[in-house]
Amino acid sequence: MMKCYEMFELKLNGDEPEGSWAEVDLKATFECGDEKRTVKGFYDGDGVYKIRFLPQKTGIYHWKAEGIVQAEGQEECTASKKSHGMVKAVGTHFEYEDGTKYLPFGTTIYAFAHQSENIIEQTMESLSKAPFNKIRHCIFPKHYDYNHNDPKLYPFEKDEEGKWDVHRPCLSYWTHFEDIVTRLGEMGIETDMILFHAYDRWGFAFLSMEECKVYLEYVVRRLAAYPYIWWSMANEYDIMFNHTIEDWYEFERIITEEDPYHHLLSNHNCMKLYDFSRPAVTHCCVQTIAMYKAGEWQKRYQKPVVYDECCYEGDLQHEWGNISGFEMVNRFWSACAMGAYVTHGETFLDENDVLWWAKGGKLKGESPKRIAFLKEILYDLPSYLTPWDEPIWEDFSNATEEKKDGDQEDPFFHLMNSLEGENLEIIQMKSAQFCGCCGDDVFLKYYARQCARVSSIHLPKDKDKKYRIEIIDVWNMTREILIQEASGTTELKLPGKEGIAVLATRI
Amino acid sequence: MMKCYEMFELKLNGDEPEGSWAEVDLKATFECGDEKRTVKGFYDGDGVYKIRFLPQKTGIYHWKAEGIVQAEGQEECTASKKSHGMVKAVGTHFEYEDGTKYLPFGTTIYAFAHQSENIIEQTMESLSKAPFNKIRHCIFPKHYDYNHNDPKLYPFEKDEEGKWDVHRPCLSYWTHFEDIVTRLGEMGIETDMILFHAYDRWGFAFLSMEECKVYLEYVVRRLAAYPYIWWSMANEYDIMFNHTIEDWYEFERIITEEDPYHHLLSNHNCMKLYDFSRPAVTHCCVQTIAMYKAGEWQKRYQKPVVYDECCYEGDLQHEWGNISGFEMVNRFWSACAMGAYVTHGETFLDENDVLWWAKGGKLKGESPKRIAFLKEILYDLPSYLTPWDEPIWEDFSNATEEKKDGDQEDPFFHLMNSLEGENLEIIQMKSAQFCGCCGDDVFLKYYARQCARVSSIHLPKDKDKKYRIEIIDVWNMTREILIQEASGTTELKLPGKEGIAVLATRI
Repeated sequence: MMKCYEMFELKLNGDEPEGSWAEVDLKATFECGDEKRTVKGFYDGDGVYKIRFLPQKTGIYHWKAEGIVQAEGQEECTASKKSHGMVKAVGTHFEYEDGTKYLPFGTTIYAFAHQSENIIEQTMESLSKAPFNKIRHCIFPKHYDYNHNDPKLYPFEKDEEGKWDVHRPCLSYWTHFEDIVTRLGEMGIETDMILFHAYDRWGFAFLSMEECKVYLEYVVRRLAAYPYIWWSMANEYDIMFNHTIEDWYEFERIITEEDPYHHLLSNHNCMKLYDFSRPAVTHCCVQTIAMYKAGEWQKRYQKPVVYDECCYEGDLQHEWGNISGFEMVNRFWSACAMGAYVTHGETFLDENDVLWWAKGGKLKGESPKRIAFLKEILYDLPSYLTPWDEPIWEDFSNATEEKKDGDQEDPFFHLMNSLEGENLEIIQMKSAQFCGCCGDDVFLKYYARQCARVSSIHLPKDKDKKYRIEIIDVWNMTREILIQEASGTTELKLPGKEGIAVLATRI
Repeated sequence: MMKCYEMFELKLNGDEPEGSWAEVDLKATFECGDEKRTVKGFYDGDGVYKIRFLPQKTGIYHWKAEGIVQAEGQEECTASKKSHGMVKAVGTHFEYEDGTKYLPFGTTIYAFAHQSENIIEQTMESLSKAPFNKIRHCIFPKHYDYNHNDPKLYPFEKDEEGKWDVHRPCLSYWTHFEDIVTRLGEMGIETDMILFHAYDRWGFAFLSMEECKVYLEYVVRRLAAYPYIWWSMANEYDIMFNHTIEDWYEFERIITEEDPYHHLLSNHNCMKLYDFSRPAVTHCCVQTIAMYKAGEWQKRYQKPVVYDECCYEGDLQHEWGNISGFEMVNRFWSACAMGAYVTHGETFLDENDVLWWAKGGKLKGESPKRIAFLKEILYDLPSYLTPWDEPIWEDFSNATEEKKDGDQEDPFFHLMNSLEGENLEIIQMKSAQFCGCCGDDVFLKYYARQCARVSSIHLPKDKDKKYRIEIIDVWNMTREILIQEASGTTELKLPGKEGIAVLATRI
């Protein structure tokens, strides 16, 4: 049974491959109306070959498999009742293929697939109650502090010399990994699949380019037909010192060429942001705490911005793993208010070394329920937030009345626009405004750590456009109506504490 | 009676000046041993001319006045019982001329001199109980939000056309201003004297260059002999759009040439840092919240770094005036831990518009007593803190054992050192370490908003060097001994909350 936006799988019997089990000679075309796609199959053991396909429309699909096994047939593809299709980047936001709203509220469980059954089940249970709809996790196991356990299975078998053989995928590993991806997908959670990373003691970080290519192509054969996966080329690509930047461009090319559906694709940095202007890169995946850059990067790249690491709530020795719950929530609101997205992670010391950020288990932090509160608010908005340059300079209009073309002529603007380097970066940080809007329908201002007791919001002056103004306490998770009906520049009385947002909704 | 490091004043009678009352023809030489200085005098009304001199050594001074009045005499200069002399920059710190320690803990009262007697007295009373030993305040009155009152006196008289006449200083204004400077000085508080600023409705911000020169020269005649003044060329020089950068260099030149004592001199920015590498600039005066730059700027300029504005504790609508008390304390500790300095300011809404930052009055915030706590700790240290690059990479020595010359060869360091622009700034912010040391005697680590429950400190490995380690809670103002005797890399158990510092003192 073929369902639109759901993975369809053909199983064909044949002889065991003679050479590589990764690069088997098998592909199939799927045709429906004027759509025709060719996908590669893979060998899944016990004489079974599989070809997976992700149909993106309803109708009759004719398919034809060629290579080591041949077959042909047709299948009616009907509408899915559960899948909205892949998540796609549209402008600076994401949405499902069928147009349904998708706002990524991710979390981080790097070595999810490499834990015991017990922990995996506990993690699934935790996720069922958590707000997260995307998980950054790795194909390769992870070696790092608090991560010294060996996984039961690895992605490859070893050859006679004890070296990983990329031509002999460990089939039970992949089945296990797919099971996790599927279970997450059915919970509405996207897998942001990390293809490479440096935290390794087994050798997966040191595959040759030739081996990397075999591996990547195999991953695409097996996994590209799942609707709920994203390609994350690496966790911290820039500290995989055996790879040059050209290697990453090559990986980008392979994935883009092999993946017929063009799943979301990006690359995660340690210190040096990847070049998000590259055409194959669908969104900006950034590790940084510079939440104030969210608007600038959206404008620069015209792509969605996801803070896929902005430190973790926890109490580790490392500065990246010991921010407070409040600060995590503050970072979420800061970026999300501008229409960017943030990924959660948690690193509380644990007597059994089960830290959520790598292994999953139980959530201990104070941020997830506040992230859920934010998620609900943003999903309730009529559309997607985009950065809002609140016209605060109107306040000075009397002073500069003669200079109608303020941005061009005003020496203050001239000074601001002339800043560069250090001066520019530090003033951006200081004067950050975390504001977003949905056209003229909604305006959101987040005050972050500002403790204003008075403020104002510059709503459209058009008298027909009236707004209800609410005050949101992001930590205590309260919403209160401050003004029932407002328009134009409106004075606000605020509580004078950190973590306050103001939401103006058109009535 | 002449006292070393105290202002000495000669009063000479003569006729009222015929032309300019600012540029009177009067100077005096003071000679003592091989020291000879020439200073200019000024007319102070009622037929009295004054010549002020700041002796910097003990002994017999011969003096000779020439010009509109002539006189000659000698005076024995004896040691002062109360003055330590001017504050000077020495390397990246400050000290009094006699070598006494001086750590600036400033506050901000821009229009101090322009308030009613009542408020001025209240401010003096507040200061007598506060930790502040430097005040940023202005010669010219201030026009801005919450600052609409006219002062009783202005620095100049007006001419017949109603224009300010820089050649006719308003003598009672200057006497009033000097009275404030003197009272502060006797309380141990330096006046960081702001010579120009843009917040003006009277025209003082729009003097011609010729008028500026007359004004500056007059200020130096009157005030340079006070030991407790610093020259701050401007508050936010870069938004005085009628002045070019060359004008500022010219002001710098005038002050430097006229001031025989070379008081501390710097210039305060709005958005564009002044060029602190200029020889006449004695220290870096920065407005920014980038506390993590404290170490970098000390190294770059080899001068003390003073964060003379890093937002104010308060609840205004402006982002520069509504940080929490905790955040103010956090910024103090962050920069001070690296041996830099921070200036306080307070902007709580007030029903009478008496906001400390501009007018003084009463302190309402929560930060001053915590700043006092920090001040006491830093004054107790055996010397001055300098930035400490804690050798944390030793932890990785096993991994990189073969690369002894780690900083040169290690690809991780290579990557870090290759960063520039945006990448560099945002990684600096994220990975900021707020650490300082007094040679091998004291090591201080401030964890800022990190909530570490475990950490370590990399003390010298030398077994002879033993340290007592204390945990400091910067908000609750507690110090507790964590380890009585430690050396080398030492594990620490911390409370897992924000605002924690660790102080290791050699025993």
